Amino acid sequence: MTIYDISEKAGVSIATVSRVLNGSSNVSEKTKKKVLDVINQYEYTPNAFARGLGLNTMKTIGILCPDSSDLYLAKAIYYIERKLRANGYDSILCCSGYDLETKKSSLNLLITKKVDGIILVGSSYIYEKDTDNKYICDAALQVPVMLLNAALDAPNVYSVVSDDFTSMYEATLQMINSGVKDPLYFYNSTSYSGKKKLAGYRAAMESKKLLKSGNMLQLYQGSHEDVPAMAEHLSKLAAKGVIFHGVIASDDTMALGAMKYAKENGLRVPEDLAIIGYNNSMLTDCCDPGLSSIDNKLETLCQHLITTLMGVLNGTEMPKQTLFSGELIKRGTTLD
Amino acid sequence: MTIYDISEKAGVSIATVSRVLNGSSNVSEKTKKKVLDVINQYEYTPNAFARGLGLNTMKTIGILCPDSSDLYLAKAIYYIERKLRANGYDSILCCSGYDLETKKSSLNLLITKKVDGIILVGSSYIYEKDTDNKYICDAALQVPVMLLNAALDAPNVYSVVSDDFTSMYEATLQMINSGVKDPLYFYNSTSYSGKKKLAGYRAAMESKKLLKSGNMLQLYQGSHEDVPAMAEHLSKLAAKGVIFHGVIASDDTMALGAMKYAKENGLRVPEDLAIIGYNNSMLTDCCDPGLSSIDNKLETLCQHLITTLMGVLNGTEMPKQTLFSGELIKRGTTLD
Repeated sequence: MTIYDISEKAGVSIATVSRVLNGSSNVSEKTKKKVLDVINQYEYTPNAFARGLGLNTMKTIGILCPDSSDLYLAKAIYYIERKLRANGYDSILCCSGYDLETKKSSLNLLITKKVDGIILVGSSYIYEKDTDNKYICDAALQVPVMLLNAALDAPNVYSVVSDDFTSMYEATLQMINSGVKDPLYFYNSTSYSGKKKLAGYRAAMESKKLLKSGNMLQLYQGSHEDVPAMAEHLSKLAAKGVIFHGVIASDDTMALGAMKYAKENGLRVPEDLAIIGYNNSMLTDCCDPGLSSIDNKLETLCQHLITTLMGVLNGTEMPKQTLFSGELIKRGTTLD
Repeated sequence: MTIYDISEKAGVSIATVSRVLNGSSNVSEKTKKKVLDVINQYEYTPNAFARGLGLNTMKTIGILCPDSSDLYLAKAIYYIERKLRANGYDSILCCSGYDLETKKSSLNLLITKKVDGIILVGSSYIYEKDTDNKYICDAALQVPVMLLNAALDAPNVYSVVSDDFTSMYEATLQMINSGVKDPLYFYNSTSYSGKKKLAGYRAAMESKKLLKSGNMLQLYQGSHEDVPAMAEHLSKLAAKGVIFHGVIASDDTMALGAMKYAKENGLRVPEDLAIIGYNNSMLTDCCDPGLSSIDNKLETLCQHLITTLMGVLNGTEMPKQTLFSGELIKRGTTLD
C-alpha cells in the first residue's frame, strides 16, 4: 500500500495525505480522520508512513550517480551533500554506472536502505522508451525521487532542469553571427540533457538554413576523459574532407578535444577554429586561450533541488519541475 | 568502554578480542570465556561490540573527504564506493571542508551514524601537532579508521600510503639529469603528503647541491582550481628576477598553471621550461604538449585500503601501514 492508495481510498489529494502524516496543522480534523481511518483500516504502516509520522526516519537521502569521478557529477555531488547536511540529512552515495540494469539494481539497493528520498544525479537515468523509466516510477512509490537535469512525468518525481535547449540554441546563434557558418556539433551523450542540447544546436542551424549534412553532428563514443581520442575523432573527420570552422561541444572535455585537434593541425583558435564548451568547469582555464563555455548554473540547480526535496518531505506542495536558464561565458575561443 | 579496555581487562590482545566478537573459530574456549566475562561483567554493549557480534550492523562505512569535487579526491571516492559496494557495504559521504573544526564535527557526525568504519580520504586530515590529531584517535576508539595517503601511529588506525617522497625525489633527479639545474617546486599544500613531496624535492636538489635559494620553493595559497591565479603567481616571481627553467608541481592543476605561465610569456615547453605534474589525472591530456606527471597508483591504493578494512572488520590481523611506489609517466613536457 502506497501513499497513492491512501489518497485514493480517502478521497483526498496526495499532498493532503502527506500533510496529515506530517502532522501539519492546516488540515481539518475531518480530513485528518478520513486519512487515518484508511491507514488504520488497512492495518499497515509502511516505512514511508513511519517516516511521515516522524517515526524511524533515518534522515538520510540516497544519491545515485553513474560515475562520481566525472568532473560535472562530482561537483553536483559536492553541492548536494553539503546542502543536505545543512538541512540535517546524511547522504548515502551509490555509483551505478551507465547501464540500465546496474542503475536498476543500485536504485533498488538504495530503497532497501530506508532512505527518506532519492536524488538521481545527471540526465543519464531517463530513457527514451517509457518502459525503461519504470524503475524510477516504482521507486517513487516508496520515496520522493528528485531528478537533477532530467525530467519525467510521474507521481512523486520532481525535476530541476537547466534549459539546455535554449543555452545551446543561443550559443550556436552566437557562433554563426560571429561569422562561422559551418559549426560542427561534437557530443558524447544521447541522454535527456544530451538530446536537448543537440536539439538546440539543430534549431539554431535550421533557423539560419545552415544544417546541410549529417556530418555536422559528430557523436563520440569513447571514454569521457580521453581527450586525445576526441582530438583524433576530429582529425579523422577532417581527413575525410569534412570542413568546419567551429566546434560546439556538449561538455568542456569534448571542447578540449577540439582544442587539441586545433593544436595538432596548426589551426589558430578562434580565427581558424572557434570553440564553445559546456558546463563552465575548471577546464575552461586549463587551456590557452581560455575556453568559452556555457554555465548551466549547477550550484543554483542543486540548491533548488534540495529546497524542493525538503519541502516535499515536510508535506508542502512543491513545483514538479523547475527550469533555470544557462549563460554563455565568453573567453578566448570565440569570435565576437 | 572500548575494545582496548576489554583487551586490557581480559589480558588478551585487541586482535583476540576482535576475533571473539567476530565469532572466529580459532580462539580457545578459555580465551573466549575471559573476553565475554569482561564484557558481561561491565554489563555494557557499545555499538562496536554489537557490530562485532553481528548484531545491529548497518554494513555502512563513513567516507570523509574535504571536498568531493576535487579531481583527485573525486576519483578516490569513486574507487572506494565501488569497492565497498562490491563487499556489500554502503557508503555515507560527508564533505568536511579543510578546517580542523569542521573536520572534527564532520567526523563526530559520522560516528553518531553507527558506521562500521571510517575512511579519511586525502592527507589533509593529519596535522603536524600531535594534539591536533586527537580527534582521529578518539574516533578510532569507536570504529576502525582508514587513512588514504596519510599515516598516524594510533590504535585501530590503518594507513595506505603512496611513497610521495621517493616519487618526487626521482622525478626531481630526472629533471636535473635532463639538464634543468634550477627547477622550481610549486605547491599548494602542507598536508602529510604535501610535506613528503616537498622533502623529496629538497633531498634531490640537495644531493646535487642545487638548492641555493628559498625562492625555489613556491607555496601558492589560492583556490585549488584557479589556474590563471597559479600562472600569475609564477609571472610575478619571474618579474622579480627569479630564474627557473623547470617547474615541479605538487599536482596536475598546479602544473597547468605553469603551462599557462609558459604560454603567456612565450616560453617553449619543454625547451625553455620543463614541467612535471602529480596525480597523472585526465588533465595531463588537456594541454599541449601532454603533461608528464607522477602516477601515484590511486586505484591500487583504494583497493588495498578496502581489503585492509574488510580484514579488520572480520577480525583478521592486518598491516597497520602499507606503502606503494609511484611512477613518473613521461609525456611532452619533460626533456629526456
